[in-house]
Amino acid sequence: MPVGTLATVKTLTPEHLAAAGAQMVLANTYHLHLQPGESIVQGAGGLHQFMGWQGPMLTDSGGFQVFSLSQLRTISEEGVIFRSPRDGRMINLTPERSIEIQNALGADVIMAFDECPPYPAERAAVEAATERTYRWLKRCVEAHRRPKEQALFGIVQGGVYLDLRQAAAKSLVELDLPGYAIGGVSVGEPPELIHEIVRATAPHLPLNKPRYLMGVGTYREMVQAIAAGVDLFDCVIPTRLGRHGAALVQGERWNLKNARFREDFTSLDESCPCYTCQTFSRAYLSHLIRARESLGYTLLSLHNVTELIGFTQKIRAAILSDRFTTEFAQWLDVSVPSSS
Amino acid sequence: MPVGTLATVKTLTPEHLAAAGAQMVLANTYHLHLQPGESIVQGAGGLHQFMGWQGPMLTDSGGFQVFSLSQLRTISEEGVIFRSPRDGRMINLTPERSIEIQNALGADVIMAFDECPPYPAERAAVEAATERTYRWLKRCVEAHRRPKEQALFGIVQGGVYLDLRQAAAKSLVELDLPGYAIGGVSVGEPPELIHEIVRATAPHLPLNKPRYLMGVGTYREMVQAIAAGVDLFDCVIPTRLGRHGAALVQGERWNLKNARFREDFTSLDESCPCYTCQTFSRAYLSHLIRARESLGYTLLSLHNVTELIGFTQKIRAAILSDRFTTEFAQWLDVSVPSSS
Repeated sequence: MPVGTLATVKTLTPEHLAAAGAQMVLANTYHLHLQPGESIVQGAGGLHQFMGWQGPMLTDSGGFQVFSLSQLRTISEEGVIFRSPRDGRMINLTPERSIEIQNALGADVIMAFDECPPYPAERAAVEAATERTYRWLKRCVEAHRRPKEQALFGIVQGGVYLDLRQAAAKSLVELDLPGYAIGGVSVGEPPELIHEIVRATAPHLPLNKPRYLMGVGTYREMVQAIAAGVDLFDCVIPTRLGRHGAALVQGERWNLKNARFREDFTSLDESCPCYTCQTFSRAYLSHLIRARESLGYTLLSLHNVTELIGFTQKIRAAILSDRFTTEFAQWLDVSVPSSS
Repeated sequence: MPVGTLATVKTLTPEHLAAAGAQMVLANTYHLHLQPGESIVQGAGGLHQFMGWQGPMLTDSGGFQVFSLSQLRTISEEGVIFRSPRDGRMINLTPERSIEIQNALGADVIMAFDECPPYPAERAAVEAATERTYRWLKRCVEAHRRPKEQALFGIVQGGVYLDLRQAAAKSLVELDLPGYAIGGVSVGEPPELIHEIVRATAPHLPLNKPRYLMGVGTYREMVQAIAAGVDLFDCVIPTRLGRHGAALVQGERWNLKNARFREDFTSLDESCPCYTCQTFSRAYLSHLIRARESLGYTLLSLHNVTELIGFTQKIRAAILSDRFTTEFAQWLDVSVPSSS
């Protein structure tokens, strides 16, 4: 899922997203609550209508953002009170409020409001957050007003403590939710730890329900997670790189400001079907990025999203024809350092 | 002509431009010489290939930019020496060099290198600049190496002195060029003076050659100029307004940050065929602009270019069916203040 934090996948139109092969798009409860506010999105007829994206959508619960972005916050059993970085007012986010906002936003998949412990964190703190996340989940299920239209996913926390992860997964599965997520990763821990967590957790989630690894979307981490049974990812990297003038090409990251691209009149990636690669040269992209022309960020983001989705499309095809472990062997070998 | 200063019409893809109905795009010799340099554009196969625009293109000569943007400059009969605002090096631009650069850039129409006097300016200074522009034009014709592929247009100067304008027009016409431009307007003079200049100059340019009014593209000024016989315009307004969060709607300028748009779920302009108007609401555009999301600038620029080109398409249709003066009467009435 490309990330459309504020109901826009940065620099791209919905037409671009469809052309890139995007199936599902993520948006952020936390950000949309602050700006423009869920009542405006609801007034427009919901997120799909508001942002012109007719495909499936998912909203996260705001839990991760409250814990990672808010400076002033007070956590209690009730929920979290934090100061809006936008206008300074105090905002109270509880499991019930998060679901109420997500019901108003109207995405197809909504996420439980969780407590996301930082990394590193003591076992006792992570255990308490994991148990609270479970209690909050039950309140989310209770508060959900549109269960037939919106699938509510639970989130497995547990930090780097694999037994906590497994216990959390088992408790969640007993609630028979429409889908499950592995949360609390990509918070600063080394990739090897993400792999360990995923390998220890995913097998405890049901085969017949979507398993979503939150905040992960690099090649190696996706391949490793898919090998462990994960189905769904979100990642800001393709658009963030694009906005910083970098391209994802065949697993590498290229900085288009690099001198070697100034007079390189070849396509970014001849084998890529995207508009950028089919129309423009590296020299032109390099020129746009050097000149800080916004079209450069759009064209690179379009390519990067196409590239990353193309990678998952190849994985899907390989799985269906039983060639996954051979075709993606280079990404499954954990001894090779991750290149993107 | 939408303006693509640095070989990009800001925030828009060539696909967007084609969808907006653009027929011809302008780029800037001055800016492209500084960045990325004409040799790179030439290496890509010329401007069309470089920026992915297959329709007609025009480059201006750099004259206007040298006189309006360069701080440190020395003007002589030979040409202009100025300090590059980009890297501080001294650059020598002469009629010969301007044409050489434009030959390398490869646009379909290229412009003579002219001396553009400021407004206001004494008659003696304007007269000297106009005469020098004529001598420079002859050097441009002499220096032009691709006359069969690139049409060189001459530029009528003369400031606000109508007799100088008429004399300049007559001298230019004797050179039998493929097209003629009225330059040195939109330099700060009131719109009424532009109209006076155009009405005094255009009739002295041949009917069977394109007449191009440089740097003008607002509704009233275009209609007035078309009434006087002008065929071609360029204007940065639609994209500049878009980048500043403003929309051109039916002749008005709307600031999308205005509170009245926050919860306005209607289309920007239902009658407009552009992707923006057919897909998104004013509330969504207002949200994007408030959030400084670059998609907002793209969507407004796309609409504004479509709107302005649509306006000229309506004018063309009205001329062809002999309804121009009745259908555009409101814009021809000079007593009404200009609204865009």
